[in-house]
Amino acid sequence: MRAYDIILKKRDGKELDVEEINFMISGLVKGDIPDYQISAFLMAIFFKGMTPEEMSALTMAMVHSGETVDLSEIPGIKVDKHSSGGVGDKTSLILGPMVAAAGVTVAKMSGRGLGHTGGTLDKLESIPGFKTDLTRREFIEQVKNIQIAIVGQTGNLVPADKKLYALRDVTATVNSVPLIASSIMSKKIAGGADAIVLDVKTGSGAFMKNLEDSVELARVMVDIGSIVGKKTIAIISNMDQPLGRCVGNALEVREVIESLKGEGPDDLMELCLTLGSHMMILANKAETLDEARRKLIQVLKTGEALSKFKQMIELQGGNPEVISNLKLLPEAPFISNFNSYKKGYIHFIDAQKIGICAMKLGAGRLKVGDKIDHSVGLELLKKVGDPVDINEPLVRIHARCPEDAKQTEIDLAEAFVVKEEPADRPVLLYGAVTEKGYKAF
Amino acid sequence: MRAYDIILKKRDGKELDVEEINFMISGLVKGDIPDYQISAFLMAIFFKGMTPEEMSALTMAMVHSGETVDLSEIPGIKVDKHSSGGVGDKTSLILGPMVAAAGVTVAKMSGRGLGHTGGTLDKLESIPGFKTDLTRREFIEQVKNIQIAIVGQTGNLVPADKKLYALRDVTATVNSVPLIASSIMSKKIAGGADAIVLDVKTGSGAFMKNLEDSVELARVMVDIGSIVGKKTIAIISNMDQPLGRCVGNALEVREVIESLKGEGPDDLMELCLTLGSHMMILANKAETLDEARRKLIQVLKTGEALSKFKQMIELQGGNPEVISNLKLLPEAPFISNFNSYKKGYIHFIDAQKIGICAMKLGAGRLKVGDKIDHSVGLELLKKVGDPVDINEPLVRIHARCPEDAKQTEIDLAEAFVVKEEPADRPVLLYGAVTEKGYKAF
Repeated sequence: MRAYDIILKKRDGKELDVEEINFMISGLVKGDIPDYQISAFLMAIFFKGMTPEEMSALTMAMVHSGETVDLSEIPGIKVDKHSSGGVGDKTSLILGPMVAAAGVTVAKMSGRGLGHTGGTLDKLESIPGFKTDLTRREFIEQVKNIQIAIVGQTGNLVPADKKLYALRDVTATVNSVPLIASSIMSKKIAGGADAIVLDVKTGSGAFMKNLEDSVELARVMVDIGSIVGKKTIAIISNMDQPLGRCVGNALEVREVIESLKGEGPDDLMELCLTLGSHMMILANKAETLDEARRKLIQVLKTGEALSKFKQMIELQGGNPEVISNLKLLPEAPFISNFNSYKKGYIHFIDAQKIGICAMKLGAGRLKVGDKIDHSVGLELLKKVGDPVDINEPLVRIHARCPEDAKQTEIDLAEAFVVKEEPADRPVLLYGAVTEKGYKAF
Repeated sequence: MRAYDIILKKRDGKELDVEEINFMISGLVKGDIPDYQISAFLMAIFFKGMTPEEMSALTMAMVHSGETVDLSEIPGIKVDKHSSGGVGDKTSLILGPMVAAAGVTVAKMSGRGLGHTGGTLDKLESIPGFKTDLTRREFIEQVKNIQIAIVGQTGNLVPADKKLYALRDVTATVNSVPLIASSIMSKKIAGGADAIVLDVKTGSGAFMKNLEDSVELARVMVDIGSIVGKKTIAIISNMDQPLGRCVGNALEVREVIESLKGEGPDDLMELCLTLGSHMMILANKAETLDEARRKLIQVLKTGEALSKFKQMIELQGGNPEVISNLKLLPEAPFISNFNSYKKGYIHFIDAQKIGICAMKLGAGRLKVGDKIDHSVGLELLKKVGDPVDINEPLVRIHARCPEDAKQTEIDLAEAFVVKEEPADRPVLLYGAVTEKGYKAF
């Protein structure tokens, strides 16, 4: 078998078989196939796409390129959730404790933030003492014990994905549905998931800018899940504006705690209840979405969801008192407001620009390895559809110094569109993709 | 400027400007841009193509990637000819002396054979003593002296092409019209040509298998020539069966000598007169194609064409007596015939298979650097359209030993199609592409 022939076959739009895909991925990881052949192969995939069978083979070849996490000693169906990334997206931190309190087993490996999007691990680490680097054994024991743990990656999972991504990143082949889908699905499957709920974002702040592309990506991932035997469903949600009100690590943890009390922003609560209901169904903890939602609302009301979060914080070395005393979270030394320059209605908040503002304040990373400041960030006081008065605060800026805040005010001016005529509140949830196809809500 | 952005721009089908193309080619040659970015770029070009302006910019960027040959001290218009490669194609050796005898200046750099196609230098070197490695000075002086020299490449011409070709060869991006066209044109222009006649082959033995693709390639090269100010015309000729009767180095030189006496096979003579007439026009040595053809026939009849070849052989260190004594050419020790297994008419001779048979006999190279045997090869005794009797010889095999000949007989059985019903002689010349477009003959 030769890499050349496989590139040629894909270039000519023919379907590759499992052996051919395995040959490419194993050659990539072993270093037998040079990068220049891999990158030509990736560009051919960009143009010619892949069938569901090819994508499943690619996904499983990537899964088997490194270690996998064996969660079989933990009883029950392990349901993982993946979000395609967004600004202000702290759903994992709310969902995890909420569904765990309702009986779902959550053994979750998360990542760090990069560019304009945040990362779950960074958010958790804003809780004083919180450890995300559990050993595999500690991780499994904690899940067996309290049904939830959220940790950083342990072991050398999916090394093929790291190599492929590094090449895609410099050859303009990131934005390819088969490559995105197999990357996401391989990481979830290598992490030990039995079933997967996907939150595919769409809109200006998301990777997929329009609904059609997002549905296509979702459909492809659900297909892969179906072929490889991991039940998968996908929700398509809006990322035209940031999710919830807070962007920045400690600020988002504060919002998580409020949400686990049932007092979070409407959009964030609704998304968590929707994703959580699907997780309940996949884990056989409810028979209908209505039943699932009732059970989740119940654990929010009774405080079981919040105390599950507290338990997790405690077991992972964090200070559980943050739950009742938000002052224990890091606080930025300088707070100022960004005010509306006119009276009217908010028509648009550019999620990507908000994310970049937060990153520049120190909440995120420009490149891997950059240090972050957990205290800084932005609180959106208004969202799309809200009326505003002239000089009314739109954003509360949490900064390290007045200079940073000043610069943020300048940058934020480009992130808001305020017009005189009223604006509709944007749709939050577009629909779901299951094995039966896309169904709009 | 970043390679990434240029790959992305081409991937999205946008037109690159001269600076962007120069950046990629200079980065390739200097090693500033890694191969994996170049190969993704090549695959994007494969799928998205290039405009004539982009191809011209690419051609000139490649020309300027290394040394160029300055022929300006040689008076007159230097017309070069390029053939897209074929089996039994010895036209350069006939054309050169013929048009030189009729007043055209021919300062030609040629290449060696690879795979199923032969190379002009290898053919010339079957003449005892013939040197193809002249210095630049010797080359120019000889052309000034007798109006013709055919030599190997001198200097580091078009290094970008070597690097690009090496990558294309392993990434399934050889077969891309913009890349083929800019490769060919850059080498001709770097070689100092003022005007170019292209012989674009079409058919089973050629790189381009169908007429449409061949016309497209020709059109693109004529466009490039027009944009960069090198007048270019292209002839589309058939390569469904080998050209002429001989395949193999010394055998082809024998056929060249016969052709320069006006006694070559019809197809070979006709192609040489057609290409030669266009060279005459481009060099301002004739005003019409009819006038050009009359002049060429004249130099064949008077023996001036043959004596020009003799002069060239003598000046390049070869034994000029081969002209009058073909026995001075190397001869294979073992000769046998491949006979027809049935009575009928020849419908097809697979040029590529004939070329591979000759290569396996030792006349060609499987890979660069392989040694060749100038004496061996094949003589086609019949061509498409000819009637044959059962057991009548179709091919005379010139081999090193009976075993080689035996194997060739086995291989040749797959190269011929003989049927009972009569077969038409194939079209030899399809048409010409000039700045005005394609015109069928």
